[in-house]
Amino acid sequence: MGQLLRVQNFTVSRDGFGAGENQSLERPFGHADPGELMAWALATASFPNRADPGGSRGLDDYFTRDFAHGIGAEIMGRNKFSAQRGSWPDHEWQGWWGDEPPFHTPVFVMTHHPRPSFALSDTTFHFVDGDPATVLEQARQAADGRDVRLGGGATVIREFLDADLVDTLHVAVSPVELGAGSRLWESPDELLDRFHADVVPSSSGVTHHLFWRK
Amino acid sequence: MGQLLRVQNFTVSRDGFGAGENQSLERPFGHADPGELMAWALATASFPNRADPGGSRGLDDYFTRDFAHGIGAEIMGRNKFSAQRGSWPDHEWQGWWGDEPPFHTPVFVMTHHPRPSFALSDTTFHFVDGDPATVLEQARQAADGRDVRLGGGATVIREFLDADLVDTLHVAVSPVELGAGSRLWESPDELLDRFHADVVPSSSGVTHHLFWRK
Repeated sequence: MGQLLRVQNFTVSRDGFGAGENQSLERPFGHADPGELMAWALATASFPNRADPGGSRGLDDYFTRDFAHGIGAEIMGRNKFSAQRGSWPDHEWQGWWGDEPPFHTPVFVMTHHPRPSFALSDTTFHFVDGDPATVLEQARQAADGRDVRLGGGATVIREFLDADLVDTLHVAVSPVELGAGSRLWESPDELLDRFHADVVPSSSGVTHHLFWRK
Repeated sequence: MGQLLRVQNFTVSRDGFGAGENQSLERPFGHADPGELMAWALATASFPNRADPGGSRGLDDYFTRDFAHGIGAEIMGRNKFSAQRGSWPDHEWQGWWGDEPPFHTPVFVMTHHPRPSFALSDTTFHFVDGDPATVLEQARQAADGRDVRLGGGATVIREFLDADLVDTLHVAVSPVELGAGSRLWESPDELLDRFHADVVPSSSGVTHHLFWRK
């Protein structure tokens, strides 16, 4: 089967936005409330870096439980790594995730402004400037036979979809309305020419959209 | 959280039977057709020991993909291991699964007729005579910190439910009607006093019932 490129647990608003407008270091999701957008995942037992015991083990938990399963590397956009834009003011910013990032693999951050790689616990961040196919090839080599997760944001997922490099997508559509921001799609139907789809409503209020290549 | 005891991908007919009547070496599911009962799982990309490439990667695949994830041991009933009853006529029978059983962990077969342990590839079968709590303790120790899968059949799952030892259950209810056989339940509602439940219809025609402790 080879190594898949998988989008896992990417959450968008009902109107198709993965994050809101005016993203900043204080508000990484802009005017969107990540606690509201991601409520379905935060409630599950398997949410990465979950602080307290407990949590649900129903349908939603199958998705959070699968986040790292079989994954050997992640690709993310610059905007997922930092709200800073342009050249790096310094190298002190090491992402939003503290000393124990939830990735536990090499992570490839796509940026036109390279900086040295660094490691936090068992996650190593690399900064790469290249087209999607080139970055995917780097990530595949680092993944050592396992799959590669495409971590978002919406702009980066669109780029990889446009280059026809994505094998599976799991997108959770939240009942929240955002009105503006970083858009994944106008409608999930846009992908039906190239992908099979399952549409699965959850008792938590989100609807899981699962796509895999035809 | 500790080590969970999980039922994974156990499939029953619409009327609650995990296998039919008159099980034999020729017909391990008795009058039930396992290809029909398990059709939802056989069609997925992640079905264990899948022979050909391809297969679906939608909702059903999340369940087959999770079969071995985080599992360190399995417990199964004698009737899942063999259609033979009573004392072993010989020790030549090594299960239905050939030289590469899909378990890849220690497996504890519950039987009143012990026989020597043996290994096939990276699966080791142990034969144990004990009550559910004792067997679970043995399996937990062998699982080395990971969860234990309760593999069935229906009778064994009932025993562990009656002893209140099961933490999560995934039961796929197939549209097939069997009329008689090895019964898991009259209705999934029987479990609602002790478990939360999600009920998730799949495009394949089965309905996934997910239970986790209240």
